[in-house]
Amino acid sequence: MNEIIKLLQSHRSVRKFTDQPIPQDVLGEMIKCGQAAATSSFIQACTVIQVEDTGKREQLVGLAGNQPYIASAARFLVYCADMNRLQLACDMHKSEMLSGFTEQFITATIDCALFAQNVLTAAHSLGIEGVYIGGIRNNIQAVTDLLELPHLVYPVFGMCLGYPAQNPEVKPRLPLSVVLKKDRYQDDTDTQTISEYDEQVRDYYRTRTGGKKDTAWSEQIAEMLVKEARPHMKAYLESRGYLLK
Amino acid sequence: MNEIIKLLQSHRSVRKFTDQPIPQDVLGEMIKCGQAAATSSFIQACTVIQVEDTGKREQLVGLAGNQPYIASAARFLVYCADMNRLQLACDMHKSEMLSGFTEQFITATIDCALFAQNVLTAAHSLGIEGVYIGGIRNNIQAVTDLLELPHLVYPVFGMCLGYPAQNPEVKPRLPLSVVLKKDRYQDDTDTQTISEYDEQVRDYYRTRTGGKKDTAWSEQIAEMLVKEARPHMKAYLESRGYLLK
Repeated sequence: MNEIIKLLQSHRSVRKFTDQPIPQDVLGEMIKCGQAAATSSFIQACTVIQVEDTGKREQLVGLAGNQPYIASAARFLVYCADMNRLQLACDMHKSEMLSGFTEQFITATIDCALFAQNVLTAAHSLGIEGVYIGGIRNNIQAVTDLLELPHLVYPVFGMCLGYPAQNPEVKPRLPLSVVLKKDRYQDDTDTQTISEYDEQVRDYYRTRTGGKKDTAWSEQIAEMLVKEARPHMKAYLESRGYLLK
Repeated sequence: MNEIIKLLQSHRSVRKFTDQPIPQDVLGEMIKCGQAAATSSFIQACTVIQVEDTGKREQLVGLAGNQPYIASAARFLVYCADMNRLQLACDMHKSEMLSGFTEQFITATIDCALFAQNVLTAAHSLGIEGVYIGGIRNNIQAVTDLLELPHLVYPVFGMCLGYPAQNPEVKPRLPLSVVLKKDRYQDDTDTQTISEYDEQVRDYYRTRTGGKKDTAWSEQIAEMLVKEARPHMKAYLESRGYLLK
């Protein structure tokens, strides 16, 4: 295993940061790593809003379900799937852009995710840690308004970045045999394998919480999925010009 | 700039590969890097189908719009957004899973993208190169059938991996000022900046094709977006249990 593989496999989300700043030029290099990721048909559909305004940061803490590290992280980035820029390109050539396709939603969203993961890897290589903030989708219209996002732009997730002031353990992942399949999907033995993995996850939580949390993976999933998942998202995205056809 | 940042910034898609194989244990380590990526609420919603069967590889070449490197790459992986496994977890606890939310489509799709980008970075660190294959969505129902994907599983993209037999140039990306914005979205100067960037892209294509291709970025985008984008995707995804509400 080389150093990069070790680095990738040792990923944990970090939510407590020191006061050490991340200089703007360093952030710029990290963003360039994001830009260098593959982009579907060269659309380059990711735009990053770097939130510096402390008032906006505080508002985002609340909008994302009270996540105080949005305010305390050295940097807070919002990754936006952006077809507004493609509209500009079409306008430059007086082309009538066809938008609203679900396929375009997929490519723009994936562009953002590949971009962001490169930024995070670049960050890790510099000793900077962070966490994705899906919680900005809790109140996505308010986040959209706060950041003045135009039509055809939606905030996919946020990301806190900073130098770590905590050192969480790596969370055990599903066994490889469940996740990597050969030539076809078959899940005959997956329930059994998940049961065994459940005990690993239970141990991880027990150790991490001094016995207070004692939940298996499948239990956690089963509890979560009986609840509605941000049911406002469909109408919101349609209003932004996505998922219409 | 450290070695990891250099590696990330030097990414190019590679479509020609030597015969050198990628051993299964090396692939396993790369997949573990994928698994180590962040996953929304720990859902771990990515499953990878490693396609070894040569007949299936040949079929995929055609289904993805005649991309022969799907057959010739040392490895071909199909990344699937997988809520079937979450269904298994719910079944283990006799929980009634609520599915069909657009939000779940987003989280499962992003899980796959973060996972895949880590796999690709791990590959690069070993001198292995590759290319994402969004073309599997051209005939996504046929790909679904070929890989025997159950309900609630959809193939997001493929990925060819192998040792490179070509050395393409790095494609220039949009200027940082267009992609990274501060506190709010504003695009007042973006058209001007895109015009300047257009000339860089034109130069890149001219050099790469000996003058045959001579297209600016905005031109390329404008030409592409007057066409429908895989208009079957919405109905397909709904039939798989996604994007229903």
